[in-house]
Amino acid sequence: MVTKNQIKFLKGLSQKKNRIKSKKILVEGDKIIREFIDSDYKLDKIYSTEPLKYQNYPNQKLSEKHLKSVSNLKSPSGDLAVFNLKDKAIENEKIYIVLDGINDPGNLGTIIRTCDWFGIYQIICSKNSVDCFSPKVIQSSMGSSSRVNVFYVDILEFINSKNIPIYGAVLSGEKLKNEIINNGIFVFGSESNGISEDILKNIEYKIKIPKYDKNVKTDSLNLSVSLGIILSKIRI
Amino acid sequence: MVTKNQIKFLKGLSQKKNRIKSKKILVEGDKIIREFIDSDYKLDKIYSTEPLKYQNYPNQKLSEKHLKSVSNLKSPSGDLAVFNLKDKAIENEKIYIVLDGINDPGNLGTIIRTCDWFGIYQIICSKNSVDCFSPKVIQSSMGSSSRVNVFYVDILEFINSKNIPIYGAVLSGEKLKNEIINNGIFVFGSESNGISEDILKNIEYKIKIPKYDKNVKTDSLNLSVSLGIILSKIRI
Repeated sequence: MVTKNQIKFLKGLSQKKNRIKSKKILVEGDKIIREFIDSDYKLDKIYSTEPLKYQNYPNQKLSEKHLKSVSNLKSPSGDLAVFNLKDKAIENEKIYIVLDGINDPGNLGTIIRTCDWFGIYQIICSKNSVDCFSPKVIQSSMGSSSRVNVFYVDILEFINSKNIPIYGAVLSGEKLKNEIINNGIFVFGSESNGISEDILKNIEYKIKIPKYDKNVKTDSLNLSVSLGIILSKIRI
Repeated sequence: MVTKNQIKFLKGLSQKKNRIKSKKILVEGDKIIREFIDSDYKLDKIYSTEPLKYQNYPNQKLSEKHLKSVSNLKSPSGDLAVFNLKDKAIENEKIYIVLDGINDPGNLGTIIRTCDWFGIYQIICSKNSVDCFSPKVIQSSMGSSSRVNVFYVDILEFINSKNIPIYGAVLSGEKLKNEIINNGIFVFGSESNGISEDILKNIEYKIKIPKYDKNVKTDSLNLSVSLGIILSKIRI
């Protein structure tokens, strides 16, 4: 049986400070756990109400009661796993996605999933962005968190360190054409504030997704939908 | 001051049965309230911690304590409004969006917002879909719920009643081209189960958003992202 200390530890992994301290993250649900096992994250242990499912891996039985107290899901799946955080460094790529101050975990998870679909395995976030290992991000990425690496850096420094075109999604930009782009940084602002001023000054190509017509009254699209549309234009 | 009965009534509006019984819905947040006022929904009353903001409308002061007990938001904005449900009927259009069994309220809200952007003001849902007036749907639609009408019908009957091409988003379809389409029904399935079998039989054109390349391991895109990408291909 799991000990009180283990329960306390597993619960604690829903908080960023504990993930950083222990260098471990918590993943829930059989499908997502198996995607992490197949990735370059190292498994620590699986905790499950049916541990026999995982006999090839280090595992421990978890009671329904303990599961409920540890899970971050409304309807816990019965399976949780702890993985070790990995060391990673930004690799040279031709396309970079940069997120300036994203704060909605559901949006970040969906963006990770969308990048995975469009073959982009790195996301560069400003340091004030939501943590990519928060339970809701991992959950809404549907397993893509195991393949797409998220980095938190000074994004102004980052975009200036690369000698490639810098695109920014803004409401007043030029309509983006359907045209494969093989070289560029694509910056997206936060839901509420858009791209911050100091970054905006460095944008070379302001792009937008046009509204259907002049009668459209809504003033913005959801961030992850915008990003999906832009990647569909430049990647496929 | 608001009475106990009023508080009970406002709280009750987070449940579908009470919205149907009273023919009223609850809307939160100044921006969204004003979009509903500007729409064809009729305002019943605004409840606010700062009622002076709304002196041109029927309003009542709400204490912080009552606000917290009534609000469906983690961080209540201070403003709530009750609107009357309106009578509405599906209008003849050239493009219809049909959702088969959508159950995630955040996704439905985002889809309503996306349709608004692309000039589509009707969404046809199967009867087992999530209610479009649930608080989370209204919130994530960011005001677009005031302009986009959602109908719950027998969608098999609906698609067979129209004599226009029927498209369905499936994983095994043909790659959708960038081509304005002015006539068609576009069917999207639920996140977990896709399009149901009896509907699938009636799909004339199976379409998909291709992955970037064969190395991509994720097996699906988020529903509202898929819908956004498809609308961007056929509408702009």
